[in-house]
Amino acid sequence: MKIRAIIPIVQPPSEPAVSPEAIVKELNQFKAPDTEIDVVFLPKGPTSIECYYDEAMAAAPILDLVIQAEKEGIDGIFIDCFGDPSVRAARELVKIPVVGAFQPSAMVASLLSNKWSIVTVLKNVVPLLHDLSKLYGVEAKISSIRHINTPVLGLSRVDIKPLLLEQLEQAFDKDGADAAVLGCTGMMGLSQFLNSEMRERGKPIPIVDPSGAAIGYLELLIRNRLSQSSLSYAQATRMT
Amino acid sequence: MKIRAIIPIVQPPSEPAVSPEAIVKELNQFKAPDTEIDVVFLPKGPTSIECYYDEAMAAAPILDLVIQAEKEGIDGIFIDCFGDPSVRAARELVKIPVVGAFQPSAMVASLLSNKWSIVTVLKNVVPLLHDLSKLYGVEAKISSIRHINTPVLGLSRVDIKPLLLEQLEQAFDKDGADAAVLGCTGMMGLSQFLNSEMRERGKPIPIVDPSGAAIGYLELLIRNRLSQSSLSYAQATRMT
Amino acid sequence: MKIRAIIPIVQPPSEPAVSPEAIVKELNQFKAPDTEIDVVFLPKGPTSIECYYDEAMAAAPILDLVIQAEKEGIDGIFIDCFGDPSVRAARELVKIPVVGAFQPSAMVASLLSNKWSIVTVLKNVVPLLHDLSKLYGVEAKISSIRHINTPVLGLSRVDIKPLLLEQLEQAFDKDGADAAVLGCTGMMGLSQFLNSEMRERGKPIPIVDPSGAAIGYLELLIRNRLSQSSLSYAQATRMT
Amino acid sequence: MKIRAIIPIVQPPSEPAVSPEAIVKELNQFKAPDTEIDVVFLPKGPTSIECYYDEAMAAAPILDLVIQAEKEGIDGIFIDCFGDPSVRAARELVKIPVVGAFQPSAMVASLLSNKWSIVTVLKNVVPLLHDLSKLYGVEAKISSIRHINTPVLGLSRVDIKPLLLEQLEQAFDKDGADAAVLGCTGMMGLSQFLNSEMRERGKPIPIVDPSGAAIGYLELLIRNRLSQSSLSYAQATRMT
Amino acid sequence: MKIRAIIPIVQPPSEPAVSPEAIVKELNQFKAPDTEIDVVFLPKGPTSIECYYDEAMAAAPILDLVIQAEKEGIDGIFIDCFGDPSVRAARELVKIPVVGAFQPSAMVASLLSNKWSIVTVLKNVVPLLHDLSKLYGVEAKISSIRHINTPVLGLSRVDIKPLLLEQLEQAFDKDGADAAVLGCTGMMGLSQFLNSEMRERGKPIPIVDPSGAAIGYLELLIRNRLSQSSLSYAQATRMT
Amino acid sequence: MKIRAIIPIVQPPSEPAVSPEAIVKELNQFKAPDTEIDVVFLPKGPTSIECYYDEAMAAAPILDLVIQAEKEGIDGIFIDCFGDPSVRAARELVKIPVVGAFQPSAMVASLLSNKWSIVTVLKNVVPLLHDLSKLYGVEAKISSIRHINTPVLGLSRVDIKPLLLEQLEQAFDKDGADAAVLGCTGMMGLSQFLNSEMRERGKPIPIVDPSGAAIGYLELLIRNRLSQSSLSYAQATRMT
Repeated sequence: MKIRAIIPIVQPPSEPAVSPEAIVKELNQFKAPDTEIDVVFLPKGPTSIECYYDEAMAAAPILDLVIQAEKEGIDGIFIDCFGDPSVRAARELVKIPVVGAFQPSAMVASLLSNKWSIVTVLKNVVPLLHDLSKLYGVEAKISSIRHINTPVLGLSRVDIKPLLLEQLEQAFDKDGADAAVLGCTGMMGLSQFLNSEMRERGKPIPIVDPSGAAIGYLELLIRNRLSQSSLSYAQATRMT
Repeated sequence: MKIRAIIPIVQPPSEPAVSPEAIVKELNQFKAPDTEIDVVFLPKGPTSIECYYDEAMAAAPILDLVIQAEKEGIDGIFIDCFGDPSVRAARELVKIPVVGAFQPSAMVASLLSNKWSIVTVLKNVVPLLHDLSKLYGVEAKISSIRHINTPVLGLSRVDIKPLLLEQLEQAFDKDGADAAVLGCTGMMGLSQFLNSEMRERGKPIPIVDPSGAAIGYLELLIRNRLSQSSLSYAQATRMT
Repeated sequence: MKIRAIIPIVQPPSEPAVSPEAIVKELNQFKAPDTEIDVVFLPKGPTSIECYYDEAMAAAPILDLVIQAEKEGIDGIFIDCFGDPSVRAARELVKIPVVGAFQPSAMVASLLSNKWSIVTVLKNVVPLLHDLSKLYGVEAKISSIRHINTPVLGLSRVDIKPLLLEQLEQAFDKDGADAAVLGCTGMMGLSQFLNSEMRERGKPIPIVDPSGAAIGYLELLIRNRLSQSSLSYAQATRMT
Repeated sequence: MKIRAIIPIVQPPSEPAVSPEAIVKELNQFKAPDTEIDVVFLPKGPTSIECYYDEAMAAAPILDLVIQAEKEGIDGIFIDCFGDPSVRAARELVKIPVVGAFQPSAMVASLLSNKWSIVTVLKNVVPLLHDLSKLYGVEAKISSIRHINTPVLGLSRVDIKPLLLEQLEQAFDKDGADAAVLGCTGMMGLSQFLNSEMRERGKPIPIVDPSGAAIGYLELLIRNRLSQSSLSYAQATRMT
Repeated sequence: MKIRAIIPIVQPPSEPAVSPEAIVKELNQFKAPDTEIDVVFLPKGPTSIECYYDEAMAAAPILDLVIQAEKEGIDGIFIDCFGDPSVRAARELVKIPVVGAFQPSAMVASLLSNKWSIVTVLKNVVPLLHDLSKLYGVEAKISSIRHINTPVLGLSRVDIKPLLLEQLEQAFDKDGADAAVLGCTGMMGLSQFLNSEMRERGKPIPIVDPSGAAIGYLELLIRNRLSQSSLSYAQATRMT
Repeated sequence: MKIRAIIPIVQPPSEPAVSPEAIVKELNQFKAPDTEIDVVFLPKGPTSIECYYDEAMAAAPILDLVIQAEKEGIDGIFIDCFGDPSVRAARELVKIPVVGAFQPSAMVASLLSNKWSIVTVLKNVVPLLHDLSKLYGVEAKISSIRHINTPVLGLSRVDIKPLLLEQLEQAFDKDGADAAVLGCTGMMGLSQFLNSEMRERGKPIPIVDPSGAAIGYLELLIRNRLSQSSLSYAQATRMT
C-alpha cells in the first residue's frame, strides 16, 4: 500500500534534519513490509504551524496536495502535523483515508492508559490542542498539555531531550499522567529513547510517537478497507 | 462606535438581496443609535460557505480584511456567517473584538432557554455546527440541528418561510426545543415574523436572529472595553 | 428603553457608596445613549446576599418589585446581585426579560476565553456559584472560584484593590485562567483599573464587570425583541 | 429516632387524603421500628408547589419550621415535596440532616438501574426537575421526565392509576427506562401497586416511592451519625 | 430482615480482627433493631482484593455464595469490599438486592456534599476506583482518591489512624473535599473517631463508613421492597 | 510478529464455523505479511459470553492462557470477544499488549465518524456495552446500541445478513449513525458485504469489523513498541 505524508509547511532551506529523505526514514520505522511511504512539502505556505493563523495560511496548498495524492492512486494520506491542519476539509475532498497526527495519537494513548499528557513545543499551541481534544471527545483523558518552550524550527537546533524529559517527569509527578504523547511531529527519533529513559527513572509511562500512531492507523484503515464517513465529512464541491 | 461586517464570500453578481446596502439595512435594525455598521465582501473566494473546504478556501482573504479593518480604526468585526469561519485565526491577529454568528447566538439562546434548536440550510452543514457546539461548550443545550434542505444561494430565490416554520414546529414538537436559532446569516429579515407566527400557532419559542445576536454582542463588548483573551487566542506572527 | 435594577437588599443606612444615585452612575457607564436605568432597593429583607438562606429571605420582596416593574412599563429587569437570586422565579412571572449578574457574565466570559475564574467575596458564596455554573452549563469553562475573604458590606470600607489583584494573579498563575469575572456586583468601578493593572503586570486577562455584562445583555435582548422562553420558565399563577 | 416531615404548603381545607394523620400513616410504611415520624404543614404559604415562584413564596415559612424542628430535638427533617424546596437553605441553618424527596429518590434509582424516568404532575414542573438533576449530577441517568397533566391538588380527586401506568409504559417502551421514580410526594400509596402491575404487564421496572426513599435515607444518615457537610452548605446567619 | 455479608476473601488464619464475629459486631452498629446480619468468607480465593486480577480470581466463589444466600431466604446481600467485586454479575443471578460498599458510599457522600474524596489502601487500587466512579456516574463529585500506602492485610497490624488523618487533611486542604469516604471495608471502627478528630482540627468533613452506608442502603431497599432492575442487570443462565 | 487470539469460551463441539482454523483464516484477512496469528479456546468455561456472569465464569481460565501466551514469547494478545472480558485483569498480569474487540473498534469508529452505532447479538448484552463505553470514555460518540435478537451460538445457524442490514438501516435512519461497529466477534466474514450493501442502499456508513480493528491495533502497538501503561494497569501478584 502507498501512504503519502504531506508536510504542511515549505521545506526549510538549510535543515537537513527535515529533508524528505530524513522524514521518510523516520516514518519507515513504524511501517509494515508491504507499505511504501513518500513525503511532499507545500510549494508555498508557512514555515511552521504554531497557531490557527498558520493553519489558515496553509489550508489551500495542503488541499491541493490532498486532491493530487488521490489522483495519483495513493491509498492513504498523513497530514504530518500534530495540529491536524485541514484534516476535516481534506476528508470532505477525497475518498481515501486522511489522518493528522493528533487524532491517531489520542486514540492510541486512550487505549493504553486512563490519563495521558501531551508535551508540545510552545504555549501558543496549547489552546489549539485543547480545541482538538474537545472535537475528538478526549478531553476527559488528558491529564495536562505541557510544552518545552521551543519553536518548531528550533527543534533540530537544540538538544530537546532534557527539555522533554523534564516535562515528562512533571506530567508524571504533578499531573497524574499514566502515558504521554509527543505533541509535535517534528520531535523525531526520540520516542524509544524517552520510553527507556523514563522507565529507568522509575516513571514508566508509555510515550506515543505521533508519526508512528498515524502510520499505524493508516495501515489499519487500509487493510480493513475503511475510510472516513461521508456522513461526518460531507462531500465538498471543489473550486477549480 | 464602528462595526464592520465581513461577508466571507464573493458578492453574488445578480442578487440584490445580498448587496452591501441590503445587508447594512438588515444589520441596522439591531444596533444602538451611536453605532455605525459597514459591510465588505471578499475580493476572491467561495460563493457560499457550506463545508470545511469552503471555509478553508475563504480563510486567507477573510484574514486580509480583518487586518485591514483594524488598521482603519474599526472597533469590532463581525465575520458574517453562521459557521464562524476564521474567527479563531482572526482573534489571533487583532486586538479589537471579533465575532462570528454562531457563538453570540449560542450565548443568547442559552440565556433565554434550557434547550434550543438550530435550523440551518443543508445537511452538509450539520457536522460543522456540531463541531462548533463542542468547541463552545454548548452541546448539552442543543435539542436538535435541523435544516431546510436549501443551499445558501437559493435562500433569496424561494419562499423559505414555510420551510422554516415546518422545521421550527418539528423542533418544538419532537425535539423539545424551548427556543431556536436561525442557522444561516443569509436568512434575513425573518426572525420577527417567525417569532409572531410561532406564538400564534401556540408554540411560543423565542427565535434568535444570528446577525442580531452578533451586533448586540459586539456593542456589549465595545461598551465594556472587552476583547478576546490573548491567552486563549495567542498572538500570531503575520506572514508579510 | 427603560431598565430597572432591583438591588435585592435593604438600602444600607449610612453607606453613600451604595446609594441609588451611586449605583445608577455606575451602571450608566455601560449603557447605550437611548437607555434609561433606575434603581430600587427592597423595602424589607436581608442586608446582603451571601448564602441560600439570604436568597430565600429576599425572594418575596424581590418578586413584588419584579411584578411592579412590568406594570410600570419597564423594558427589562436586572436583579443586581451575582447570585442571580429569584431570577428563575421572576422569569415565570413577567414577559419582559429578567437577568441577574452571573449568567450574563458567564456568557460574556465564555465568548472571550476558553477558561475563566471568578473572584468573589467570601468562601460561603462559593458552593452557590458552583451550583449556578451547573445550572447554566458553564462548569467546564471555570478555572477556579476564588474569594477575597471580605463580606459584601465591607466592600466599600476597605481598599479591596490589592485583595482583588492578589486573587486575579493567583487565578492566572495557578489556575490557568484566561479571563476573570468579578463575582459580586458590589465591587463597583474597578474593572477598568483591574484590566489595565493586570496588563501592566504581564498577565493580560480580560476582566468582566458583572453589572456591565448584565446591562449589555438586557440591551441586546430588548433590541432583538427577545425574552426568556415561556417553555423553560413556565407561567406562574400569582398569589393574590 | 424522631423524623419530622414538613409539608411545604398550607393544609388543604377539605381534603382528608392529605391530613397529617393520612401522611403519617403513609410514611410509617417505610420506617424502622424505632423511628417516630410527625408531620407539620405551613401556617401560611402556597397551596401547592408547581414552579419556582411557589417555592419562593414557601421559603420563609419552611425555614421557620426547620429551625423550630431542630430546637425541639428532632433528629432529621424531611421537606416533603419532590421539588426539594428550600432544602439548600435549610441545610445552612441546622446541624441535623435535611432531605427533600428528589435527591434521595435519585440516589436510590441510580443504584438500582442505569437509566430511570420520572413521572410527575404537570409540564410546568419539568424544567425545575431538570435543574435539580443538574445540581445533583444525575442528568446522565435520566431517560425522561414525563407527567400526567394533573395538578397536585387534583391528585386525590381523580383516579391517577391509569394515568401513571400509561406514562410508565411510555417510559419503558419509548425512553428506555430501566426504573422509574414517582415525581410528586402527593402520589401516595401507589408504588407497590404500580410495581406489581408493571411486572404483570411484562415491563418489570422498579418504581421508587419518593417518600420511602426520603425516610430510608434519613434513617441511614441518623444511624451513621452523618449530616450535610458544613463546607457544601455554609452556615447562615439567621435573621431574627 | 436478614442481611448476609459475603467477605470476598478467604478468612485470614490468625487475624482475630477480621473474624466473622468481629465483622458482625462492626456491622451491627449501623443496623435497625429488626435486622439480623451474618457473615461468610470464601471457601477458596484470594487473601485480599487489590486489583482486577484479585477480583477475577474471587468471582466464581463469590457467585456461589450469592446463589446460596438467596436459596436460604436471605433478604439482601452485602459483598463486603470497597471494589464492589462481582456485584454486577451477582445482580444478574438473584432477585434480592445486592450491594457492594463503593456504590452506597458514593450515593451517601453525594447527598451530603458537593465534592468528596476517597482514602483507600494502596496506589494499585486507584484506577479500579476511578473505573467504578465512571460506571456509577459520580466522577464529577470526586475531589481526589488518596491512599495510605498500606495493604489490606496490614490494616489490623499497624495504627492506621494517623495515616488516615494525614490523607483526610490533605483531601481537605489541597483537593477541596467537602466530605470523605473510607475506601476499604477493612478500615473498621474508625469513622466516628475520624469524624470527631477532623472536627476538632477545624476541618469538619463528614466521613462515610462504607459498611455503614451499605447496611443502611440494604435496609432502605428491603423496607421499600425494591431490588436491582432486571433491565439493567439481565437475567443470567446459571452454569451448574 | 506473533499474535494470539484467545477465544474466551470452550470450543463448541460440532460447529465447524467456529473452529480454530476458521477463526485464523478470518483474522488473517486483516493482518500484515509479517504477522502470524494463532487461536486457542478455553479448556473449561462458558459456551458463550452474554452477560457479566458469563464473563466472571470465564475469568480464571482466560487469565491462565494470558500468562501462558507471554511465557511462549507471543508479542500481543487478542481476547477475542466484544465484551472485552478480563482485559483489565490481563493487562495487570503481562507486559505484552492485550486488547479485546470493543476498545479497538471504538477507537477506530471514533476516528472515522462523529457518531456510531453498535449492532450486537442480544438485548442482555446492551448494559454491558454501555458500561464499556463509559469506561473507555466513548459514550458521547454512540448513537445507539442495537441487537439482532440472536444468541451467539445461533450466529452460524441462521442467515444473519438481513437481520444485520435491518438494524444498520435503523441506526442510519433513526439514530443518526454516521458509522457502525459489529458488536460480536462471532459475526464473521460479513463486514465487507455489509459495507457494500449499505452503500448500494444509499446509506454509506463505514462498518467496522471488531476483529479487524483488534488485529490492526495490536500490529500498530507492537510496531511502535508500546504496551498498556503499568500505572493504569497495576502489576498484579499472581496466585499460583
